[in-house]
Amino acid sequence: METLQMYIDKLNKLNFKEMYQNDFFLTWEKTDDELEAVFTVADALRYMRKNNISTKVFESGLGISLFRDNSTRTRFSFASACNLLGLEVQDLDEGKSQIAHGETVRETANMISFMADVIGIRDDMYIGKGNAYMHNVSNAVREGYQDGVLEQIPTLVNLQCDIDHPTQCMADMLHVIHEFGGVENLKGKKVAMSWAYSPSYGKPLSVPQGVIGLMTRFGMDVVLAHPEGYEIMPECEEVARKNATATGGSFTKTNNMAEAFKDADIVYPKSWAPFAAMEKRTDLYGNGDFDGINKLEKELLAQNATHKDWTCSEELMKSTKDGKALYLHCLPADISGVSCEEGEVDGSVFDRYRTPLYKQASFKPYVIAAMIFLAKFADPAALLKRLEDEAKPRKR
Amino acid sequence: METLQMYIDKLNKLNFKEMYQNDFFLTWEKTDDELEAVFTVADALRYMRKNNISTKVFESGLGISLFRDNSTRTRFSFASACNLLGLEVQDLDEGKSQIAHGETVRETANMISFMADVIGIRDDMYIGKGNAYMHNVSNAVREGYQDGVLEQIPTLVNLQCDIDHPTQCMADMLHVIHEFGGVENLKGKKVAMSWAYSPSYGKPLSVPQGVIGLMTRFGMDVVLAHPEGYEIMPECEEVARKNATATGGSFTKTNNMAEAFKDADIVYPKSWAPFAAMEKRTDLYGNGDFDGINKLEKELLAQNATHKDWTCSEELMKSTKDGKALYLHCLPADISGVSCEEGEVDGSVFDRYRTPLYKQASFKPYVIAAMIFLAKFADPAALLKRLEDEAKPRKR
Amino acid sequence: METLQMYIDKLNKLNFKEMYQNDFFLTWEKTDDELEAVFTVADALRYMRKNNISTKVFESGLGISLFRDNSTRTRFSFASACNLLGLEVQDLDEGKSQIAHGETVRETANMISFMADVIGIRDDMYIGKGNAYMHNVSNAVREGYQDGVLEQIPTLVNLQCDIDHPTQCMADMLHVIHEFGGVENLKGKKVAMSWAYSPSYGKPLSVPQGVIGLMTRFGMDVVLAHPEGYEIMPECEEVARKNATATGGSFTKTNNMAEAFKDADIVYPKSWAPFAAMEKRTDLYGNGDFDGINKLEKELLAQNATHKDWTCSEELMKSTKDGKALYLHCLPADISGVSCEEGEVDGSVFDRYRTPLYKQASFKPYVIAAMIFLAKFADPAALLKRLEDEAKPRKR
Repeated sequence: METLQMYIDKLNKLNFKEMYQNDFFLTWEKTDDELEAVFTVADALRYMRKNNISTKVFESGLGISLFRDNSTRTRFSFASACNLLGLEVQDLDEGKSQIAHGETVRETANMISFMADVIGIRDDMYIGKGNAYMHNVSNAVREGYQDGVLEQIPTLVNLQCDIDHPTQCMADMLHVIHEFGGVENLKGKKVAMSWAYSPSYGKPLSVPQGVIGLMTRFGMDVVLAHPEGYEIMPECEEVARKNATATGGSFTKTNNMAEAFKDADIVYPKSWAPFAAMEKRTDLYGNGDFDGINKLEKELLAQNATHKDWTCSEELMKSTKDGKALYLHCLPADISGVSCEEGEVDGSVFDRYRTPLYKQASFKPYVIAAMIFLAKFADPAALLKRLEDEAKPRKR
Repeated sequence: METLQMYIDKLNKLNFKEMYQNDFFLTWEKTDDELEAVFTVADALRYMRKNNISTKVFESGLGISLFRDNSTRTRFSFASACNLLGLEVQDLDEGKSQIAHGETVRETANMISFMADVIGIRDDMYIGKGNAYMHNVSNAVREGYQDGVLEQIPTLVNLQCDIDHPTQCMADMLHVIHEFGGVENLKGKKVAMSWAYSPSYGKPLSVPQGVIGLMTRFGMDVVLAHPEGYEIMPECEEVARKNATATGGSFTKTNNMAEAFKDADIVYPKSWAPFAAMEKRTDLYGNGDFDGINKLEKELLAQNATHKDWTCSEELMKSTKDGKALYLHCLPADISGVSCEEGEVDGSVFDRYRTPLYKQASFKPYVIAAMIFLAKFADPAALLKRLEDEAKPRKR
Repeated sequence: METLQMYIDKLNKLNFKEMYQNDFFLTWEKTDDELEAVFTVADALRYMRKNNISTKVFESGLGISLFRDNSTRTRFSFASACNLLGLEVQDLDEGKSQIAHGETVRETANMISFMADVIGIRDDMYIGKGNAYMHNVSNAVREGYQDGVLEQIPTLVNLQCDIDHPTQCMADMLHVIHEFGGVENLKGKKVAMSWAYSPSYGKPLSVPQGVIGLMTRFGMDVVLAHPEGYEIMPECEEVARKNATATGGSFTKTNNMAEAFKDADIVYPKSWAPFAAMEKRTDLYGNGDFDGINKLEKELLAQNATHKDWTCSEELMKSTKDGKALYLHCLPADISGVSCEEGEVDGSVFDRYRTPLYKQASFKPYVIAAMIFLAKFADPAALLKRLEDEAKPRKR
C-alpha cells in the first residue's frame, strides 16, 4: 500500500542538497539523484492531495509567470503548482507593462520580485535566446538578494526554453515510470522520438531535445527519427550520446520513421521546425526582415508538406512492441481528421490513448510543485512528514 | 434576531443530497428544496461574513472562470465567491490559450482542471450552443475523474448560457424574498417580466427566460410582455407554464407593456433580442456570413427602434401596485438621458431604485458561493456549524 | 538591534486614528504623525517578512486594482502588498468589462466591491480627472456601505493620479530616511527635483508634484528646476511653500538645472510634460480632436528637443554635495546610450546608483501594505504585537 513514508524514505536516500536555493533550467544539469528527488516529491504531493492533506507551505508569496508565447496547459500547470503550495500567481503580461519603454531585464526582474518566491518563464521562440534570458533573470534576482533589494531569492523554473522543456519532459518521464511500474523496469526499453507532419510550422525544438536529453538517462534505447533537414541542436544530441554511454543504453538516429517505430516500447511522434531554419528566423526577426520571415514560412510549410507520410498511423503502431507501444504527446496534437486534414497522428490512435495522454499531462503541476518545493526548503523530507502529522485538510 | 442556527435548522429540513458532486445548469432542473438550500446557504454565508467569521473551506484549489463574453459583475461575483471559500480564480482567456490550435473541448476541460474545484462558464451568445458546451465540459471532467486523470470532480456553475442565467435569477429571487419578508409572502404577487427598448441589439435571452422559469415557482402571477416578434425560446415558456400550474400561480403573455405593469408588485423591464433572430445569427456565424450578420444587425436595430415606447417610464410605474412595484434589473441598464438618449428606463425611476438594485446585485456572489458549497461538501449544515464554532475571524 | 517592539513603541506615540476606515489620496492631506505611521508600519512589515513572520491579517478578501495606464512596478507592488496581508488581487480590466456600455462610476464601484477590502487606482493621464475619479469611487462605496449594499468599506489607495503619486513618493522618502539614517538627519539637506530631457512626451506630473509636496515636510531645502514652459500645477507649489514655512526648510524654483544640483544632497532628475500642455491635451481628448492631439504631440516633442542639455550628467553629479548626492528615480528611467540615444541620465551615473535605485523601489509594496493596514485595523500596534507572538511562519 502506498504511504507517504515510502516517499520520505526514498528522499532520505538521495542527495539533492544543491537544489536548495537553486533554479531548474535543463534536466542534464541535474544529477540522477536530483531528478529522482523531483519525481519522488511530485508523487508525494499527489498522494497528499489525493488524501486531502494540505501542502500549503507558504502563508503568502507570489509565483510570477512570464509567458512569451501563448499557452494553456503550462500556464495552468504553473498556476496549479503555485496554488498547491500557497503561492498566488501574478502574470507579467509584457503587453500591459512598461518593459518596452527602456527597461532592462535586470531591472524588470527585480521590480517584479519583491514578494516572489518563484518565477516561471516560457520563452521558446528564438534559438539562443530563451535559456539565456532565463539566466539573465536568475542572475539579476540573485544579485538583488545579495544587494539587499530582495528579501528572498526567487527560484527560476524553466517552463520551456529554446533548448529544453524540463517540466514537460519530467512529467512525460514520470508518466512512463508509472506506466512501466518503476524506473527499474525501463532498462533496454526502446523509445522512438520521431518527427511527425503538421500543417503548421515553427513548432519549438525543446520537446524532442528535452526528451532525448532525459530519456537516455534510464538505460533505454532512444532513437531520434526525422526527415533529412529537420535536425535538432547538435549540443542536445551530444548530451543524449553521453547519457546513453553512461547508463548502458543507446542513442541512435535515423531518417526512417518505420525503423524507429519497429518494436518500440514508447513512441513520441511530434512535429518540430528544423534547427537551422529556426536560427535563420531568429536572425530575420533580429533584422526586422518581415518579407524574409514570410518567405521562410512558405518554404518551411512547403518542406513540411513533402513529409506527410511521417504520421503516427495505425499501421506504424502495429509495428511497435506487441502492437501497443505507449504513445506520448505533449498536447495539443495535430490529429488527422480531427484538428486538421492530415497531421501528426491518426484519429483512432489518438483516441485509444486519450486517457494515458491526459494522465501524462496530469503530472506536470506536481512536477513543477516538486521543483519549487526542493528549491525553497532545506529539508523537504522533514517538511513532508510534518505536513502529514499536522494533517490539515486541503478541503474541509 | 438572526442567528446562524436558524439557517442550519432550515437546511436540516431540506433534501438536497443530489446537489453533492453535481453541477448547476438550469434552475428548473433543481427541486424546490434544492433552490431553498441555495438561498439558505447564501444567507448563511452572508451572515458569517457580516459577523467576521471565516468561511474559508479550501486551503488550496482553483476556481476556473471561462468567459466567452465580456463581463464585469459576473466575473467579480465569481471571483468573490471563490475567494470567500478559499479558492483562487484562474481565468481561461481563450485568446491567450492554444485552444484554437486543434484542441478539443474534452481535452481543454481536463488540462485546466488538475487542481480545479469549480469551473464557472459564461457562454450566452449562440442559441443551442452555450448550455450544450457546459454539458460537454462537465462530462469531460467527470470522465477525467473516473479515469484517474483528475483527483477531484470540478463542479460546473452556469454563469449564463443561451437558456438560463441561474446565478443572476437566483440573486434576483433572493432579493425579492428579502424585500417581501419571506417566500411565504410571495403567493399571488404579480410579476411583469417585460421587454424594453435599448439602442443596442443582440442582448441575451437568458434573463427573461430564467426569470419566468424561476419566479413561476413561488405561486406568483408572472406576465411575460414583449412586442410581437420578440419571442423567447418556447421551451422556457413551457417550463413557466408547468411551474405555474404546480404552484397555484399563473403564467400569461401579452404584447402590451401597460397591461403587464398594471398593478404589478414586481417589474423587470429589460431588452433582449428575438429568439428567431438569435438563431439566425448563430447560423450566419456558423457559415462565416459577415455580410449577413451586418444586415441582420441593421434590421434588428431598425426593428427595435419601432418600439421606443416600450420603456419603464414614471407613468408606467405609477400604474403598478400602489405606484411602487419593486423594480428589478440585472444591470447595467440602458437609462434614458444617462447612458443613452432613449432606453429601458427613465433616469428618475432608475435613480429611485438605485439602492435596491445594488442590493439585488449584491446577492450574486453569495448565491454562487452557495452553489459551490452545496456541490462540494457532503454535509453543508454540519460544516457551517463547525465554522461558527471555530470562529476564525475573516479579518483580524 | 532592530526589533519589532521598536516599531510598536514608535506607533504608540503617534496619533493616526483618522486613518482608520479612511482612504489615502494625497500626502498633504495627512498629518505628520500619519505619514510617520505609514513609514513605521512599512518598516515593521518588512522586518516581519525578513524574519519569516506571517503578516496575513485577512483570511479572505479582494484587493481590486484598476489601472487606466500601463504599469509593471506599481501593479506588482500593489499585488505584493495585497498578498502580504492575505488579500487576493482582482484586476478590473476595463477593456474586458461592460463599463463602456452605459455604466456609471458609482455603479461599477459597487459592483466590484462586494468582497473588496481595498481598491487601488492608477489614473494619471488627464489633468483634473484622476483624483476626482478616485473620490467618486470612494464616495460611491461609502454610500454603498451605508445603504447595506456592501458588508465593508473598501479603502481607496491612490496608485497615481493627476496630482500626486503618494505610494511612489512615500517609498522614495522612506528610502531617503534609511539612506540618511533617520528623519532627524534630514533638516537642511538640499533636494533638487529637476526636469530632465526625454525623447518621449506626456509623462505625468504626479512625481515632481508629489515629491515637492512631501519632501518639503522634513525641513529640507527643496529646489524645483525646469526649463521655462514646464510649469507644474500651481496648487502643488503652494503646498510646498506652506510646508517649507512650517518646517523651517525652504522651497525655491529655478530655470537652471546646474543651480539646482549645486551642493545638492539628493537629486531627482525626471521628465514631465508641461502642466498647461496636459490641460490642453485633456480638453482635446474631451472634444475627440485627434488632429489637435497629434499636432500637440509634435509641438511638445520639438519643445523637449530644445532642452537636451537638461540631463543628469557625470559633470552635474560632480557639482553635488561631495560629488555624491543620492540619485533618485521612480523608474524606468530614460538612460542615455542604453534605452535611448539621449535621455534623463548618463549611463554611468545610472549604473552607479542601480542598487540604491532598486532599494528605493523595494519600499513601495511595504508602503502600500502599510496604508492598507492602517486603514483597515483599529489598533495596528496591538495587531503587530499579536502577529509577532503567534509567530506563524510566512514560509514553512
